[in-house]
Amino acid sequence: MVKYIAEFIGTFFLVLTVGMVVIEPGVGTLAPLAIGSILAIMIYAGGHISGAHYNPAVTLAVWIRGKCDTKDVVLYIVAQIAAGIAAACLTLFLKSNPTVSAMTPNVLPALLAEFLFTFALCFVVLNVATAKSTEGNSYFGLVIGLTVLVGAFAVGGISGGVFNPAVAIGITLMGLSAAQDIWIFLVANLLGGVVAAVTFKIVNPSDE
Amino acid sequence: MVKYIAEFIGTFFLVLTVGMVVIEPGVGTLAPLAIGSILAIMIYAGGHISGAHYNPAVTLAVWIRGKCDTKDVVLYIVAQIAAGIAAACLTLFLKSNPTVSAMTPNVLPALLAEFLFTFALCFVVLNVATAKSTEGNSYFGLVIGLTVLVGAFAVGGISGGVFNPAVAIGITLMGLSAAQDIWIFLVANLLGGVVAAVTFKIVNPSDE
Amino acid sequence: MVKYIAEFIGTFFLVLTVGMVVIEPGVGTLAPLAIGSILAIMIYAGGHISGAHYNPAVTLAVWIRGKCDTKDVVLYIVAQIAAGIAAACLTLFLKSNPTVSAMTPNVLPALLAEFLFTFALCFVVLNVATAKSTEGNSYFGLVIGLTVLVGAFAVGGISGGVFNPAVAIGITLMGLSAAQDIWIFLVANLLGGVVAAVTFKIVNPSDE
Amino acid sequence: MVKYIAEFIGTFFLVLTVGMVVIEPGVGTLAPLAIGSILAIMIYAGGHISGAHYNPAVTLAVWIRGKCDTKDVVLYIVAQIAAGIAAACLTLFLKSNPTVSAMTPNVLPALLAEFLFTFALCFVVLNVATAKSTEGNSYFGLVIGLTVLVGAFAVGGISGGVFNPAVAIGITLMGLSAAQDIWIFLVANLLGGVVAAVTFKIVNPSDE
Repeated sequence: MVKYIAEFIGTFFLVLTVGMVVIEPGVGTLAPLAIGSILAIMIYAGGHISGAHYNPAVTLAVWIRGKCDTKDVVLYIVAQIAAGIAAACLTLFLKSNPTVSAMTPNVLPALLAEFLFTFALCFVVLNVATAKSTEGNSYFGLVIGLTVLVGAFAVGGISGGVFNPAVAIGITLMGLSAAQDIWIFLVANLLGGVVAAVTFKIVNPSDE
Repeated sequence: MVKYIAEFIGTFFLVLTVGMVVIEPGVGTLAPLAIGSILAIMIYAGGHISGAHYNPAVTLAVWIRGKCDTKDVVLYIVAQIAAGIAAACLTLFLKSNPTVSAMTPNVLPALLAEFLFTFALCFVVLNVATAKSTEGNSYFGLVIGLTVLVGAFAVGGISGGVFNPAVAIGITLMGLSAAQDIWIFLVANLLGGVVAAVTFKIVNPSDE
Repeated sequence: MVKYIAEFIGTFFLVLTVGMVVIEPGVGTLAPLAIGSILAIMIYAGGHISGAHYNPAVTLAVWIRGKCDTKDVVLYIVAQIAAGIAAACLTLFLKSNPTVSAMTPNVLPALLAEFLFTFALCFVVLNVATAKSTEGNSYFGLVIGLTVLVGAFAVGGISGGVFNPAVAIGITLMGLSAAQDIWIFLVANLLGGVVAAVTFKIVNPSDE
Repeated sequence: MVKYIAEFIGTFFLVLTVGMVVIEPGVGTLAPLAIGSILAIMIYAGGHISGAHYNPAVTLAVWIRGKCDTKDVVLYIVAQIAAGIAAACLTLFLKSNPTVSAMTPNVLPALLAEFLFTFALCFVVLNVATAKSTEGNSYFGLVIGLTVLVGAFAVGGISGGVFNPAVAIGITLMGLSAAQDIWIFLVANLLGGVVAAVTFKIVNPSDE
């Protein structure tokens, strides 16, 4: 049970931070620094409790790689989505019901951008947080947070830089993304997680 | 005795940095980077001496969690507040008695914002600096500093991003916050610390 | 074989990030933060697989220092260049075939700038990732990434801040650098790697 | 001998980076990020060779604390100053002999600002790089680099944010500081180092 609470707390602060720094008046071009940092922080705070996924695509990738119990998959994702919804509501309250305009992404570049950096994110997670060769390292959280920072800087202008279905639901509720575009994130992010898990197994043949 | 000196030094540089980078001419949108960094630095410099709280809300949370001697609580807080006052005076001198205008926060969002991120800060502190499962890690200071960076980016525009009663006293003396608003920080920050300690115990049931 | 895949993935994301954050609309003055971070990330993700060179100059320096098999040198460089080419094509697609104007560097300062910071990069790599005295450290990736961040800030305006022949090929294909200038990077970067390896041996006389 | 080469290399890249990012066209408000990073990098690269002081005030503080051989003190400082001079010349060449205007600091605030943050820098160095309780940590370089970043953000507008006599000499040669002001840095920085060493001994009574 405490694992689901930890997943809720971490994802809640991640989505809350996304909303607070992106919705005007936010922090402009520095938003990725705050978003990457909150992810790193919450991974270090909750990693020893739940593994600190905070992202359905990561849960999927870790499950395929064999380091997440099958019975946890659904409840982790439920906790993450619930946190995304709660954080979206609270953000709108803290921002006093702001006027927000949704992005209008080009479908193909957006799908590709989301796929590529969710792949990178999950590939990094599997290598720094589940691989035998990097066991016991102290950099896992920082590296995972920085991956989201880089992705947001690199393709934020193409797709919004989401890489996480729970964040996608949160920003859709906040009005930052249109409801009819949510499939872009769900498809590209989950596919990125799957391909990352497969790639991890290929390049780490002796790590089961 | 040396513990109180260490608490004084760390809190002094924290509040001095807040004043120097926030009061005009400061460093604009980069202020949270400097503030989070000085906290991280001083935690690494003084952690082995006093535990490096530098914040009455953290001292309260660590005491509830059972990792701060009861006899130290009052003296830690006295040292932190004295440091906040000294740093405020020195900042005003270094800035040549600047004209400063106080924030005018909305009470309810400000209370909520301060509560949420002081909760996050104390929850992070307890998990990375006092939990059995993360003992001996090298990331504790950086992660705690980044939490203040994120909070300042996320809710700086709502509440000022204080999360620390000693900082609240310092910025009130500097004129950045009005005297009649100080209760917002005292109430929200201490409550955040209490709720974080209780939550920590819930999600770490086997860690006493 | 998996080593070459790892070199491809890491270099691919490095060059992709360079293109995405530098070509307009990019992230302006924050570009070095994204570029240094993706290098750090990919080093932590792939270090345990291939050693995470992602740079022909680094491969050359590590080989001279005696920590890269001779039979790997050519294939590592082939994988890095192939990744640079693939990333350049994908960047142009994601940016919808942008209009890009090439830098016009002054040859002598550009050669010197590229030499100095490729020397720094390779000297840092050898000391933090191959030296006996720093074995088992957890900071290697972050430090190497920060070296590229610093170099890009320091001499980006002089030479573009490349320090990597695979990146040089990538940005030339993207149109950020003119084809006739590519020798500047190839010469200065490889020379920087050689001098770094020699210097490393001089200042680490007992480390073979 | 190799220790003096390491001190030269580290200080050279520190002063070169200062000049390149501060002299126009530099990197504006992001300059402290580059300067703090190059210091962190060079500490990790050279720490195992020379201890990585790169600063006469640090050498003085470490010597008083008893962790620097008396015979090394003068030669370390000579290497640092030689590096500062070499870097200044090279910066002027790379910037094509730029027109630079010197700061005009107010003496008393500048002295105080330089004293306070050189004290912080040396106090941090002694606690994270020479104290028994923090031995073997991996964060020392990052924390020391961040201290210069914070100092530059906090008091850069008051004193220039130097904290290092070798840097003071370098920026004076570059024209960023007037020759008649150099005593401010020499006095305040060396005094900061001395007071930091004394304070370190007071708060670490059992660490000899």
